[in-house]
Amino acid sequence: MRIAVDAMGGDNAPESAVRGSILARDEYSVGILLTGNEKEIKKFLEKNTSDFKSIEILNAEEVISNDDKPVMAVRRKKDSSLVKALYAVKNKEADAAVSAGSTGALLAGATLITGRIKGIERPAIGSLIPTMNGGFVLLIDSGANVDSKPEFLYDFAIMGDVYLKEVMNVSSPRIALANIGSEKTKGDKLTVEAYNLLENTTLPLNFTGNIEAREILKGKADIIVCDGFAGNMILKTLEGTVIELMKGLKKELMSSTRSKIGGVLIKPALTNFKSKFDYAEHGGAPVLGVNDAVIKAHGSSDEKALKNAIRQAKICSENKVSELIQESIMRR
Amino acid sequence: MRIAVDAMGGDNAPESAVRGSILARDEYSVGILLTGNEKEIKKFLEKNTSDFKSIEILNAEEVISNDDKPVMAVRRKKDSSLVKALYAVKNKEADAAVSAGSTGALLAGATLITGRIKGIERPAIGSLIPTMNGGFVLLIDSGANVDSKPEFLYDFAIMGDVYLKEVMNVSSPRIALANIGSEKTKGDKLTVEAYNLLENTTLPLNFTGNIEAREILKGKADIIVCDGFAGNMILKTLEGTVIELMKGLKKELMSSTRSKIGGVLIKPALTNFKSKFDYAEHGGAPVLGVNDAVIKAHGSSDEKALKNAIRQAKICSENKVSELIQESIMRR
Repeated sequence: MRIAVDAMGGDNAPESAVRGSILARDEYSVGILLTGNEKEIKKFLEKNTSDFKSIEILNAEEVISNDDKPVMAVRRKKDSSLVKALYAVKNKEADAAVSAGSTGALLAGATLITGRIKGIERPAIGSLIPTMNGGFVLLIDSGANVDSKPEFLYDFAIMGDVYLKEVMNVSSPRIALANIGSEKTKGDKLTVEAYNLLENTTLPLNFTGNIEAREILKGKADIIVCDGFAGNMILKTLEGTVIELMKGLKKELMSSTRSKIGGVLIKPALTNFKSKFDYAEHGGAPVLGVNDAVIKAHGSSDEKALKNAIRQAKICSENKVSELIQESIMRR
Repeated sequence: MRIAVDAMGGDNAPESAVRGSILARDEYSVGILLTGNEKEIKKFLEKNTSDFKSIEILNAEEVISNDDKPVMAVRRKKDSSLVKALYAVKNKEADAAVSAGSTGALLAGATLITGRIKGIERPAIGSLIPTMNGGFVLLIDSGANVDSKPEFLYDFAIMGDVYLKEVMNVSSPRIALANIGSEKTKGDKLTVEAYNLLENTTLPLNFTGNIEAREILKGKADIIVCDGFAGNMILKTLEGTVIELMKGLKKELMSSTRSKIGGVLIKPALTNFKSKFDYAEHGGAPVLGVNDAVIKAHGSSDEKALKNAIRQAKICSENKVSELIQESIMRR
């Protein structure tokens, strides 16, 4: 088992990717293929380990940034770390790919290079959101596709279901549709029609109906299905609110001597609390609906997040998530 | 100036409505027309004041609940507190209406009873969200309309602009479109087309482009325009995250003696911090695009929130928000 890791993607590249790769190799016994600037990668490799076993480098001179137009970047920057990681998987030099780089480029690259699963019109990105009960929920699609058709949402549910069963060990994932109300007649046309498809499916999907955005963190669903526009609103509002709240709270605690002392006392509790929202804990976001295992690690991933993303990529590949999605899609 | 207040709407009815009305009468010198069960209202009136000047009751035997289908409820429950409050405005017995009851019913009622402004295809609800810099942002539409057309979003911007200028004293409100990215080509068809309309408007609108949901609390825009489905996802995710985070934090602080003591010390800071997210502070959500001033107070409104909603209704009516919207719409 070998995982191709885009060493140049993300805010902390290449250090996080290199360190995360070393950790993953040691902990999960996987081989690593780091793509990117060889000199740079070597520097961080040598800085962090003296054991180079099972770690190889595939030199790539270009880097795709978040400002690049995804499809164009994938087509033109053939010598980029992201494109080379995906080609490594396509050419069977690696079993799965991980990148903390541009979400759009990874999705476009995975679709163009490793290819869509037959029957899937739109691959999607599923984001794992930590919930307040210590669990998580998979939000799919979290931003890859806008202007979805009801059939896409149905496929997102199928893909999420396979992923949660195979990679996250959830036996019968509760699937809910993000909606503005709980009744089946509520919502926009897209969601009402997707409801009908999910309600009348012959596949063994545990569809539980609509969920309002207010309930997301309560852990009442394992999979939340929606169009990528709505999914992006949910994910980004959530991230923004957590960040701004924590920032605001810190500032408030500095406002008086009394609260400063209190702040010192609650620090361990606060750290523990914050760890519950640690996106790194559950790893990255799977690109689902493509022929190979591709994981998008958060742009701000540290080594631990990268390590976890590599573990996810490994399980995805081992458990043949793409093949199982293909099978479900053929039976739908 | 007299405000019709639906005394039976909301979680704390009729007590909050009655107490809020008394406060508003005393503070803003407005007359109040309370609609609802006369006996109940009288009980709380007598409990809270001995001065009944400028407060009248209009008996209504029915109550519209959140479970009622909005349009049907408005049509059938003619003797409901919500419908009677709106008819009072239509029949010039009051100048504006406030309700903490069903959002859907208030919107449907305002549209059917007081009527749409000529040229407005879809009235919308604008929700005021407190931002981290102590300000607020108006999210329009926050859930009234799904499957919007680009023209609706354009009208939401116009209505929000008038409201912020006239009621919230913002001189040149920064208008942004909620989107999945900042470039003008990003997003779904609806948003891309709405971008074009806003960019090429001949009205004096301060359109600043797209805003990502992650930025909402930063106070970078005064008005965020979107379809009601997306708006509902934003608003409810935000509310849910704030609630769950505060709950989780409290629980975490109870987990050890050290953090319990710290918790006592930071209590004033925490209370101050929480007040920044107090929806009551800025009052309720205006129903915009109808011929009269109608304010939706939050379902969980206390007396202070109700009082503020009455103040908003008063300013809306005084400053002729509906007439000004009508004028802008005719010039677009």
